[in-house]
Amino acid sequence: MSEMRRVVIVGGGFGGLYAAKALGKTPVRLTVIDRRNFHLFQPLLYQVATGGLSPGEIASPLRVVLRHNQNAHVVLGEVVDIDSVKRLVILRDGTVPYDDLVIATGSTHHYFGNPQWEPLAPALKTIEDATEIRSRVLAAFEHAEREPDPEKRRAWLTFVVVGGGPTGVELAGALGEIANDTLRGDFRRINPAEAAILLVEGTDRMLPAFPPDLSAKAEAHLIRLGVRPRTGAIVSEIDPDGVTFKAGDRLERVPAHTVLWAAGVKASPLGQILAARAGATLDKAGRVLVAPDLTVPGHPEIFVIGDLANFSHQTGQPLPGVAPVAMQQGRHVARTIQRRLRNLGSRPFRYFNKGNLATIGRNRAVADFGWIHISGFVAWFTWVFVHLMYLVEFDNRLLVFVEWVYDYFTRNRGARLITGREACP
Amino acid sequence: MSEMRRVVIVGGGFGGLYAAKALGKTPVRLTVIDRRNFHLFQPLLYQVATGGLSPGEIASPLRVVLRHNQNAHVVLGEVVDIDSVKRLVILRDGTVPYDDLVIATGSTHHYFGNPQWEPLAPALKTIEDATEIRSRVLAAFEHAEREPDPEKRRAWLTFVVVGGGPTGVELAGALGEIANDTLRGDFRRINPAEAAILLVEGTDRMLPAFPPDLSAKAEAHLIRLGVRPRTGAIVSEIDPDGVTFKAGDRLERVPAHTVLWAAGVKASPLGQILAARAGATLDKAGRVLVAPDLTVPGHPEIFVIGDLANFSHQTGQPLPGVAPVAMQQGRHVARTIQRRLRNLGSRPFRYFNKGNLATIGRNRAVADFGWIHISGFVAWFTWVFVHLMYLVEFDNRLLVFVEWVYDYFTRNRGARLITGREACP
Repeated sequence: MSEMRRVVIVGGGFGGLYAAKALGKTPVRLTVIDRRNFHLFQPLLYQVATGGLSPGEIASPLRVVLRHNQNAHVVLGEVVDIDSVKRLVILRDGTVPYDDLVIATGSTHHYFGNPQWEPLAPALKTIEDATEIRSRVLAAFEHAEREPDPEKRRAWLTFVVVGGGPTGVELAGALGEIANDTLRGDFRRINPAEAAILLVEGTDRMLPAFPPDLSAKAEAHLIRLGVRPRTGAIVSEIDPDGVTFKAGDRLERVPAHTVLWAAGVKASPLGQILAARAGATLDKAGRVLVAPDLTVPGHPEIFVIGDLANFSHQTGQPLPGVAPVAMQQGRHVARTIQRRLRNLGSRPFRYFNKGNLATIGRNRAVADFGWIHISGFVAWFTWVFVHLMYLVEFDNRLLVFVEWVYDYFTRNRGARLITGREACP
Repeated sequence: MSEMRRVVIVGGGFGGLYAAKALGKTPVRLTVIDRRNFHLFQPLLYQVATGGLSPGEIASPLRVVLRHNQNAHVVLGEVVDIDSVKRLVILRDGTVPYDDLVIATGSTHHYFGNPQWEPLAPALKTIEDATEIRSRVLAAFEHAEREPDPEKRRAWLTFVVVGGGPTGVELAGALGEIANDTLRGDFRRINPAEAAILLVEGTDRMLPAFPPDLSAKAEAHLIRLGVRPRTGAIVSEIDPDGVTFKAGDRLERVPAHTVLWAAGVKASPLGQILAARAGATLDKAGRVLVAPDLTVPGHPEIFVIGDLANFSHQTGQPLPGVAPVAMQQGRHVARTIQRRLRNLGSRPFRYFNKGNLATIGRNRAVADFGWIHISGFVAWFTWVFVHLMYLVEFDNRLLVFVEWVYDYFTRNRGARLITGREACP
């Protein structure tokens, strides 16, 4: 037993967990290290932020996910350093030796040199972010209901989402649904449908990673949900009373108390540790430039996968930071480790792109399958199906499906709680 | 319209909401004030604290509950004073005039002159308390898994619940279930079933408000769940490393890092405001001594109901601080206000005791219906039925029922998340 190869995986996201599960029956000694005790199903996080789902419904305890992998140890801990000579992962309060190391710590949000915006415009990365955003959005309607001054009321009823990628589009769409549908009849003085939801994007179209025809479809869907898409606009200032952005040469000012950040991500700080300790090269976003087999050049025993990896051997461009890339890379690393147990060399990774999806409100989405672009209800149905299948695969979360169907027909968003802060003015 | 009688209800708990709903079709101008935007189904809060349910499943937005009562305005706000001469409720940022005032602000936890224990031994009153307790309990097992020293590990695996009333019994029972059932197979180094769960009660039996035969049954059920009931023991000190309690003349010390407080409640501070502003008399626990019609003596326009009221006209003893008392009092106040609209006098309140229930783990409970005492599975089934009926009545929460059935058969506790804090050592 003591002779078994020690595989250490840092990060329990899609990349790390798929690697761990693929190694579930392999005779290695597996350690999965994460700061949190659960895997978070990030693609549905915006549903928590908008009161559609509860945190527990999109998070699965790591120990439950890995329960049947008897070779897997879960360690809750924060990696503070890596000793690539002695092959040790250094935690805040201990060390874990490795023969193979898989770093899959993902990305965090990024305010492009404006860290002071973070408290004013929360981003959506963690469960805590999601419940904080939920509280802010709901409290804004409560403030508006109590505000007699029409101008001030307008600022409470204005929501600005910065960033027109999939997360921004999903958030804005869900906000449109909340204002026009969910909260209908809840208030006596304000009409929630009067809320203004601005979606601000720096490039010339929403969903810039999608083909232009789908961007146009997405914008049309958003407008129907009451969202005002605002392209070609760069945020230049955020303060407690509003947002200033630059559109061409003009500066525009929007008074608003609720600003949500979906504009930028940067790689996890583990990249810097790898640069310092294992000579890894980082790109501008802090991602590790990996070899074709996903290892750090010069360190065949260190793999980097998921959002933290810059893999550009296939298309010349880095692969996008989406769950399918991380999952396929996790499985590839597992296969490489299995091959090494049989003294075989590693093979280059190849990403098989099954398509890109972004959902807009309760029954519209856009889907890019390369050979075909679809939008509207069919795309939405595909989106729901794909996401629920993953959830069910992970943790038998059939109940989320039941809840989804129920909410779909009742237009309910039951988890509309203002928590963790003083709700009242 | 402006001539309509203005009824102001402070507090959206069981008392306040049942009063509001009973006045739903009455031609009065109704305002419900609460600090939170949701009604919390307190009897199931321990399920959130133990990972069985998510916060959203036991909380309903007040605006949703009162959506169909067109006469009802919901105001999020904190009452800081009452002007009983001008008949104004004074909020932090405004005033609300009333003709009839219903105070239903309940109770809060109480550390009997030891406020320094609060951070060491959280009590279970709010959603935030519940998620904090959930995080502490789960993190304790994680610490134990990583602790090589057997003595220190033991302290992480020792859980002390202070207070043997229904909340303490429910918490301890759920902890027993977690240790012996839910977490089985989750860890590699520790066996969660080795956890020691102490339930400490100052009197000579658990559930002192129940008949002695049911206390004995409850203790037997608890022991079967791995809980050690410890009666006749008064906590004298709590520090980060453990609990000291006095049993007779002896001092006992239990090293433990997880202590939960279920020992005492005191009335909401609104009682003191009523004493100062309306001449109300308070009992030792800070409750308002109410007249037979639930008004403050000398102020027929001010009603106090629920946990904040001391109503002892029926049995000579104050009625217990349980949901059915609050609900019946809420309905009674509504009827009194309706009678006054027809220029009729008020009638004395009478509590109809339908029985007391306390649940112990996943399939045992005790029930005191006065004429019959039951325990075991039938009592548990009654408990589930009664609680789910209330939930369904309030907010159509059939899904909680589905989840309950699902969890019952799978022994799952899906919401086992460590949130809102650093999970790792």
